[in-house]
Amino acid sequence: MNEFDLIDRIVTGLGCTRHSEDIVIGPGDDAAVVRMPQGEDLVSTQDVCISGVHFPEDCPGNLAGYRAVAVNISDLASMGAKPLFMTIAVTMDGLSETWLDGFIEGVRHAAQEYQCPIAGGNLARGHLAISISANGSVLREDVLLRSTALEGDAIWVTGTLGATTIAKQREFPIPTDSLQDLMNKRDDDPVARYFLPHARVDFAHRARHLIHGCIDISDGLGSELNHLSSCSLVGATIDLNCAPVWDGLNNSVSLLNDDSYELLFTSGPDDVDELTAIARESSTPLSRIGEIQAGKELFIWQGGRRLTYSGGFKHFSDEII
Amino acid sequence: MNEFDLIDRIVTGLGCTRHSEDIVIGPGDDAAVVRMPQGEDLVSTQDVCISGVHFPEDCPGNLAGYRAVAVNISDLASMGAKPLFMTIAVTMDGLSETWLDGFIEGVRHAAQEYQCPIAGGNLARGHLAISISANGSVLREDVLLRSTALEGDAIWVTGTLGATTIAKQREFPIPTDSLQDLMNKRDDDPVARYFLPHARVDFAHRARHLIHGCIDISDGLGSELNHLSSCSLVGATIDLNCAPVWDGLNNSVSLLNDDSYELLFTSGPDDVDELTAIARESSTPLSRIGEIQAGKELFIWQGGRRLTYSGGFKHFSDEII
Repeated sequence: MNEFDLIDRIVTGLGCTRHSEDIVIGPGDDAAVVRMPQGEDLVSTQDVCISGVHFPEDCPGNLAGYRAVAVNISDLASMGAKPLFMTIAVTMDGLSETWLDGFIEGVRHAAQEYQCPIAGGNLARGHLAISISANGSVLREDVLLRSTALEGDAIWVTGTLGATTIAKQREFPIPTDSLQDLMNKRDDDPVARYFLPHARVDFAHRARHLIHGCIDISDGLGSELNHLSSCSLVGATIDLNCAPVWDGLNNSVSLLNDDSYELLFTSGPDDVDELTAIARESSTPLSRIGEIQAGKELFIWQGGRRLTYSGGFKHFSDEII
Repeated sequence: MNEFDLIDRIVTGLGCTRHSEDIVIGPGDDAAVVRMPQGEDLVSTQDVCISGVHFPEDCPGNLAGYRAVAVNISDLASMGAKPLFMTIAVTMDGLSETWLDGFIEGVRHAAQEYQCPIAGGNLARGHLAISISANGSVLREDVLLRSTALEGDAIWVTGTLGATTIAKQREFPIPTDSLQDLMNKRDDDPVARYFLPHARVDFAHRARHLIHGCIDISDGLGSELNHLSSCSLVGATIDLNCAPVWDGLNNSVSLLNDDSYELLFTSGPDDVDELTAIARESSTPLSRIGEIQAGKELFIWQGGRRLTYSGGFKHFSDEII
C-alpha cells in the first residue's frame, strides 16, 4: 500500500464529504475550501496529541482518534462556536492496519457526534502523533472569552473532574470494550471518560448568551481559574468541596493536572434558572463552585481551610533551562 | 521558564497581533477568532514538517521555521487563495533557546513576507516537529483546482526545480549565513532555495483568472502531473528539456522526489501574453513545458526519447505491509 492508497483508505473510511453545501472542496486537493456561514466569524484552534504524552503508547487507534478530536472540539466549545470542519495531520512510525482502522473508527465517531466533518489532512512518517485543526463559526457578539468574567458572576464547572487522576492511579488500563460500549459507560466509568472526553460544545453554544467568561479545563481547575481571573482582571473565591470529582477522589485533585476538557465558566447570578434549564436539555451536569470578585486574588477554600494555588500542569518544567 | 512563559516569549517574539481588523482574537484564548472577507470561501490546509524527515536534524530554527510556513502557504497558492492567518503547533523534545529564537525569526519573516499572521498555536513535548494550519480566502468562482485542466491548455511550471536533489548530493550542508543573506541569494543558490522555498502565492492569486488546473510540486513533477491529469480526466505531453532545473542537473531529476513547492498549472493557449506579463510583475520565472490533451495518457519526452513515469515520492513505501 503506497501513500496515496493509504490516504484513499483513510478518506473513504472516514466517510469524508468531497463536496457538500459547506465543504465546497473536501480531501483530494491541495487544500480544503469551506463556505462560511454569512456574517459569522471563524473560530480556529490546533492541538497535538502525542503518543506517550497525551495518550498511552499502547492506546488503540479508536480511543486515540476520538480523544484527539474531542480535545480540539472542546476548544471550540469554550469559545461558544459551532463546529464547522477539521483538518487532521497524522504522523506514524510505521503502518499498523489495526491501529489505522481503529483510528478511522474513532475519528469518524467523534466527527459525527460533534457534527464536524473532516475536510482535509496530511500523512507523514514520524513518531505517532495526531495534530488537528478544528474550525467553527460564531456571531462575533456571541463569542465566549476567558477575559470577560464579571464581578459578582457565579462560577460553574460542567461534568466531573479527575478522570485522568484515576486512570493514572490504575496505570492507564486499556479498555477492551467496543467504542460504542465505552461511549455508553463514559458517564459512569472514569477510565472510559479519560479516553473519551465529552466536549461540551452543544451546551456552550446553546448557553452562549448567558455565559460571561469561559475556558476549558485542560491543565487543572487551579490553572484555568488563574487564567480566567487574570485575563478578566478580577479575583475569585471557590469552594473546592463544590467541585465535582469522581467517587473516591479528594476534591482537591481537581486543582492540578486535570485534562478533563470540561468547561469552567461564569454567568450573571440572576441567570441560574435559565442556565440550569439549558444544562438539563443538553444533559450537561453543572456545579456552582464559587463567585467572581473584585481584586485579583484567588481564594480557594476547602472545608474551612484556604489552599494556596501554585500552578497547573507544566509541559516544560522549570528545570529545563 | 515554564510553559506559559515560553508561550508568552513565542507570542511576543512572533509579533502576534492579539486584536486587529481581521484577527478579532489572536493568541491567548482557547482558539483564535478571525473575521472572514465577506462573500469569500475559506481555504484551509495543514502540513507537518518533522525533524529528520522534512528538514535535517541539525537544521537551525530559523530555516526550519521559514520552510514549514512556506510549505503550507504553497498549498494556499495552488488554490489561488490569499493568505489570512496561520495556527502553529510545535512539539519539542527539550528546550533550546537558540533554536527557539531562530524558529521565531524564521516564522516571523515568512509570516510577514506572505502576509499571513499567526493567530494561535500549541506547544507540547515530543519529537521536534512543526505542524501548521494555513488558512486563506478566495471568491468561490476564483478557486484553483487540480481537477480543472482543459484539453488544449498549455502546461507551465514556476521557478526552478531540483534544489532538494542538489542539497541531498551535498549532504544538506547547513548554511551559516543570516536569514536575510540567505533570502537574498535563494534565486541563485539551490541550497539556500532548498531551505527557503518561495511559495508562489502572489503570482497565483494575481493570475487566478487565467489559470485552469493547478497543483504545487511537493513530490515531483511526474507525480503532480499524474494527479493533475487524472483529476482533470485528461492526458498530457511534456518535454522534460523545457522543465527548469538548477545548473548541473539533468532535467529528468525534476520528475521524482522534488519538493520545490513551485506550481504546476495549465492555462488557455491564448492567454500566454497576459500570463507572462503577470509573471514578470510578480518576478516569477515561468516555463512552458507542454500541453494538455484528450485521453488519459502521460507522454513525457526528453530529447526524442519517451520516459515512463513510475510514481513519485512515497512517504510509506510498498514494503511496509
